[in-house]
Amino acid sequence: MQTLKIGLIGTGYMGKAHAIALKAAPTVFSLSATPVCELLAEVDDELAEWKARELGFARSTGNWKALVADPDIDVVDICSPNFLHKEMALAAIAAGKHVYSEKPLALSAADAQKMVEAAEQAGVKTLVGFNYIRNSATQLAREIVESGEIGELIHFRGRHNEDYMTDPRVSHGWRTRRETAGAGALGDVGSHILNMAEYLTGQRISEVFGQLQTVIPRRPLADGSGGMGEVENDDQAQALLRFDGGLIGNIETSRVATGRKMGLAYTLTGTKGSIIFDQERMSELQLYKHEGPEGRRGFSTLLIGPEHPDYAAFSPAAGHGLGYNDQKIIEVRDLVEGIVGNRPLFPDFREAWRVNRMIEAIERSHAEGGWVVV
Amino acid sequence: MQTLKIGLIGTGYMGKAHAIALKAAPTVFSLSATPVCELLAEVDDELAEWKARELGFARSTGNWKALVADPDIDVVDICSPNFLHKEMALAAIAAGKHVYSEKPLALSAADAQKMVEAAEQAGVKTLVGFNYIRNSATQLAREIVESGEIGELIHFRGRHNEDYMTDPRVSHGWRTRRETAGAGALGDVGSHILNMAEYLTGQRISEVFGQLQTVIPRRPLADGSGGMGEVENDDQAQALLRFDGGLIGNIETSRVATGRKMGLAYTLTGTKGSIIFDQERMSELQLYKHEGPEGRRGFSTLLIGPEHPDYAAFSPAAGHGLGYNDQKIIEVRDLVEGIVGNRPLFPDFREAWRVNRMIEAIERSHAEGGWVVV
Amino acid sequence: MQTLKIGLIGTGYMGKAHAIALKAAPTVFSLSATPVCELLAEVDDELAEWKARELGFARSTGNWKALVADPDIDVVDICSPNFLHKEMALAAIAAGKHVYSEKPLALSAADAQKMVEAAEQAGVKTLVGFNYIRNSATQLAREIVESGEIGELIHFRGRHNEDYMTDPRVSHGWRTRRETAGAGALGDVGSHILNMAEYLTGQRISEVFGQLQTVIPRRPLADGSGGMGEVENDDQAQALLRFDGGLIGNIETSRVATGRKMGLAYTLTGTKGSIIFDQERMSELQLYKHEGPEGRRGFSTLLIGPEHPDYAAFSPAAGHGLGYNDQKIIEVRDLVEGIVGNRPLFPDFREAWRVNRMIEAIERSHAEGGWVVV
Amino acid sequence: MQTLKIGLIGTGYMGKAHAIALKAAPTVFSLSATPVCELLAEVDDELAEWKARELGFARSTGNWKALVADPDIDVVDICSPNFLHKEMALAAIAAGKHVYSEKPLALSAADAQKMVEAAEQAGVKTLVGFNYIRNSATQLAREIVESGEIGELIHFRGRHNEDYMTDPRVSHGWRTRRETAGAGALGDVGSHILNMAEYLTGQRISEVFGQLQTVIPRRPLADGSGGMGEVENDDQAQALLRFDGGLIGNIETSRVATGRKMGLAYTLTGTKGSIIFDQERMSELQLYKHEGPEGRRGFSTLLIGPEHPDYAAFSPAAGHGLGYNDQKIIEVRDLVEGIVGNRPLFPDFREAWRVNRMIEAIERSHAEGGWVVV
Repeated sequence: MQTLKIGLIGTGYMGKAHAIALKAAPTVFSLSATPVCELLAEVDDELAEWKARELGFARSTGNWKALVADPDIDVVDICSPNFLHKEMALAAIAAGKHVYSEKPLALSAADAQKMVEAAEQAGVKTLVGFNYIRNSATQLAREIVESGEIGELIHFRGRHNEDYMTDPRVSHGWRTRRETAGAGALGDVGSHILNMAEYLTGQRISEVFGQLQTVIPRRPLADGSGGMGEVENDDQAQALLRFDGGLIGNIETSRVATGRKMGLAYTLTGTKGSIIFDQERMSELQLYKHEGPEGRRGFSTLLIGPEHPDYAAFSPAAGHGLGYNDQKIIEVRDLVEGIVGNRPLFPDFREAWRVNRMIEAIERSHAEGGWVVV
Repeated sequence: MQTLKIGLIGTGYMGKAHAIALKAAPTVFSLSATPVCELLAEVDDELAEWKARELGFARSTGNWKALVADPDIDVVDICSPNFLHKEMALAAIAAGKHVYSEKPLALSAADAQKMVEAAEQAGVKTLVGFNYIRNSATQLAREIVESGEIGELIHFRGRHNEDYMTDPRVSHGWRTRRETAGAGALGDVGSHILNMAEYLTGQRISEVFGQLQTVIPRRPLADGSGGMGEVENDDQAQALLRFDGGLIGNIETSRVATGRKMGLAYTLTGTKGSIIFDQERMSELQLYKHEGPEGRRGFSTLLIGPEHPDYAAFSPAAGHGLGYNDQKIIEVRDLVEGIVGNRPLFPDFREAWRVNRMIEAIERSHAEGGWVVV
Repeated sequence: MQTLKIGLIGTGYMGKAHAIALKAAPTVFSLSATPVCELLAEVDDELAEWKARELGFARSTGNWKALVADPDIDVVDICSPNFLHKEMALAAIAAGKHVYSEKPLALSAADAQKMVEAAEQAGVKTLVGFNYIRNSATQLAREIVESGEIGELIHFRGRHNEDYMTDPRVSHGWRTRRETAGAGALGDVGSHILNMAEYLTGQRISEVFGQLQTVIPRRPLADGSGGMGEVENDDQAQALLRFDGGLIGNIETSRVATGRKMGLAYTLTGTKGSIIFDQERMSELQLYKHEGPEGRRGFSTLLIGPEHPDYAAFSPAAGHGLGYNDQKIIEVRDLVEGIVGNRPLFPDFREAWRVNRMIEAIERSHAEGGWVVV
Repeated sequence: MQTLKIGLIGTGYMGKAHAIALKAAPTVFSLSATPVCELLAEVDDELAEWKARELGFARSTGNWKALVADPDIDVVDICSPNFLHKEMALAAIAAGKHVYSEKPLALSAADAQKMVEAAEQAGVKTLVGFNYIRNSATQLAREIVESGEIGELIHFRGRHNEDYMTDPRVSHGWRTRRETAGAGALGDVGSHILNMAEYLTGQRISEVFGQLQTVIPRRPLADGSGGMGEVENDDQAQALLRFDGGLIGNIETSRVATGRKMGLAYTLTGTKGSIIFDQERMSELQLYKHEGPEGRRGFSTLLIGPEHPDYAAFSPAAGHGLGYNDQKIIEVRDLVEGIVGNRPLFPDFREAWRVNRMIEAIERSHAEGGWVVV
């Protein structure tokens, strides 16, 4: 059995989720190659060693450059803070490695473009972790749209709202600084819904009209000085959308949407039916079909089951439910199969670059007060 | 006991709803005056007589001008097709009658303005039937916002989507013509959510950025000729909003939102909590408060009960539910008390005029591609 | 137009609901006769006069026997406390009046039987106010079951739980005394779900196995003495059921079901589909059909609309919602049409007697520890 | 790092779920020992080898007795068909192995008792896979009950209904035969809710009154003969319950509950609050507290998050959701920690034996028509 040796950089929230998925994927799916948790990099040797033991990696290093240079490594898996993605990915590409990076790919479209060009020149595979598109229910939504089952799409409504910064005591940190985060809510959670809008509709967002707002303009500095710092990016954003297929729609995103914990949700309206989804109930999809007797029409709650994409690998029985980490397991399956089968990965760096361009178009539109072409 | 003699013009959907409410209101509420179903006007004498018997009016006429001129009538209640509102209201005002008109008040802001000026000069009371703001749950939402219980508002999301024109075989009629309907979905159902946005937030919409679309550009003519006619107004519309208190938000409206029957819904996000409401479940409100132990926070489903505005008059027990017509009963109560007590009515013609101006601002913004001041 | 002159006894919760319905019904429906709010009886002349003015009755009396004897009255409408139903109904029947009584009909099956016999001998019409079976959604459920659309019924689950006596400070009053209330939760709210079980399934409950419990055995006396009294009936009850058509099922009822305000709910499982209903969301029904592609099956939320029983009289547009009082309006329609058309009414005294017998069978089963034939 | 070498017997639905959990658990949790997927047994060598490769086991065998006898194996993990549990567990115990068995433990209480006695005499650890009690939301429910937060429990309602045998074409197989399955729905899915009833309430079910029914009495034989066979156990069952702490309640279970896919659900009613849970929405819990202003009380939807039991190991952010397999990961954690720490496991064979006794008490009660002491 072929193996793919993985070098993981960063062991925070996402690093752990990647590790779990790498461990579980070969048992959930019949993979063409086994991903091997080979090498783990953290900020120093000690932490790296501890985390390697905890997450089940064979070796560790306190120097990510050593990881990138390691001849044994096939795939560099980047789960570091966002502002480090670019440098690490470019180094990995230069070393001829495939790159599996967390989102957002980069802090700017210009940076993302450089990464795309490097990867494409080097001929390495890239994958960016927009994991929510891999949820079985969302894959099902895509399938229903694509099949024409709800007719022609006429409206898309999407949001990704959370409230992790509702509390004004949350400090001014890397997330609230332009230099380290780029856009605020729009770049962080908003990137998911922008990517998903194109995935679900099969259309490209061609023009945007955006509005951004920093709701809490000053936050306490993290240095314990008691001082306050100016927040440099958006707490919430919204945009009207034109798609290249004639569809219109809108998106909303927020990090101060009080009460929303995993508020990624969408409504797809078609000429013959509609779909409603809410990630807080990630294992169900609401489907309406404009057919049959009028007195029997209503939104049906489809519980995800083995007839739906990728579910059967987790359970043969409907309604048993997928969790957050299961999405990452599907993502790892796609990574492995794409690399081994030499097939295009989605979303790759090029696709993720689009997300950066959409974010910047929304920002520019906000500044200019008019529609901006993506 | 004082009486208010009502002259009703028009006996379609809304005319019947008004009649039911006029009959029930004095029993539900202890009113300062009894509304009397005195005179009913329809397009001809025969229909008028039949409808008067059916809806319980004392007298009838095939000539609405006779109704307006009738010295016994205190209030002219206009439930005719929208394009007739202006002429009838102006005649009623000229005759010194109070006017209770269905929405939308007029087909254009200019017309609405004339009606406002006439009414204010004549010193008559006016009320426009934006009935959804009278639902107990929505009054509760307003109460919660006003009290500061969810902090300062930071986002408003509203929609009023229905699917009564999803079927492309629905004919080209008065609703799809500029001359008889003015705006399309935006003027019809959209007017509700625009009015409600200001009601709920207590702020004025100061600027809009709008986008309109006619999804089904041609519909069969109603004349049986088999020909098709060009639809002259919007099937769906959306807008970003700026409020004068700094709040931002958005609205959506549609008459082709497949699957939505009574899709008026809103989310009010505040710095300390949030409210979610859906008119399809009109007797409940979702409330989130950012307080108490983190592990016990969640959206609570409040079933409307006697502690909430106006519910106790219908039932002393919580959770028993209000229906569509109950909102009209509350509206009639407000009409009667406002006239008898000589208090301002809400929303009166001046307020409804704002709705026309918001609609036109959204249309102009769509045409111009930029923000438009209301 | 024919009239039916109504004499109403009692103006509490239900008396007002009846008055509202009597006023509104002729406008909502095209009735064969107009119910006239003629005479109202309360415990003394003064209260009666005040209430007659408030609820819109032409005359009043402080003596219910005068009402029953009044030659002008066609229908005696009994909304007095439960323990008075028997005496009043027997007097009304003796006077040859039709009787419209609130539930429960009587405090015991023996009493109910006497009332049935008197009414049938006198040949008067009787109707008992089990209003929830008239809700459009529940009529639809009955229609679906009857049509065979969900196959043969194999299980019924029903409950009517509320929490109006959860608070231990609620005093020992007429509800908690055997002499004035008969059974506790089982007689009060439980009677609704027992009646509904037979209505929905079209089968008779033939045997029951019951269990009752007084959760709060002592409550403060209402006399302000500070003393406590022994509660004499059940706070909660449950029973397994055998129906005469082979169906099995269960019911639950409670007045201490903390958090439930209008907790009447049922699930009907058939061999080809299922129905779920919850009165707290009274304008929707969940329907599952075991047909079509497996990946598209799910419970559909049907919003009640004009295709469903009796809805169109309230609104021509789906999803606009019925309220509690609308059920009473339908009940009044049935009363009027049954009397004028000389058709059987449902549920009449005979049917309500069954409810008393089911309650007593459950109580006896609880005492004996075995199945009891109804 | 210590290891626990696992020998897995059976690779169907549950075998795979165990394998996934064994692989993922050490990364999700910081375990005191690493479970190692050492040896896998299937019905023949070839299948065993294939499955070992697929599920990631080091070695394989076509003879489960060899697995049990293997000196390297610490834990025998039994995922074979139910009727084989007894023989395999006894053999494993005889070989001094710890046993991790799928539910139901045995086909009869007598068999289960033998297994309990053997295990206790041998001093090995045992764990039975009632995985739903490990779901974070259900652990939270237990925590809330235990803390007294909803007062004293007064009612328990539970069900585990599915529809995997709704279709009458599902053949007569091991599930429908007494010899191979024991009880029907009651033994299969019913065992979960019986176990959970005691887990959640912290009380023992002392007496039951049961009712069973075979809805589809004959099913097609699986031999392709076209013949039909008599179903030998229940398709649906229900029971009233008395708990030893005074609590009453009821359970329902079915394999023909048309439309229910993962219909494990419960309502816990207390004197000061209530909890509602539905496994089809496994990452949320509804909580009602009878406190605070009456107009602000309602069931709150708690999205499971890091403040709740075991969630933080999967994700640091609330609302991201657990899936079916995550419950098994928690179960593996408990297995490992219990063995390494020499702590009691729950539910062990003794606890699972209770489930068998409750099942048999319900069956006996059905036969006898009266309450049966467990």
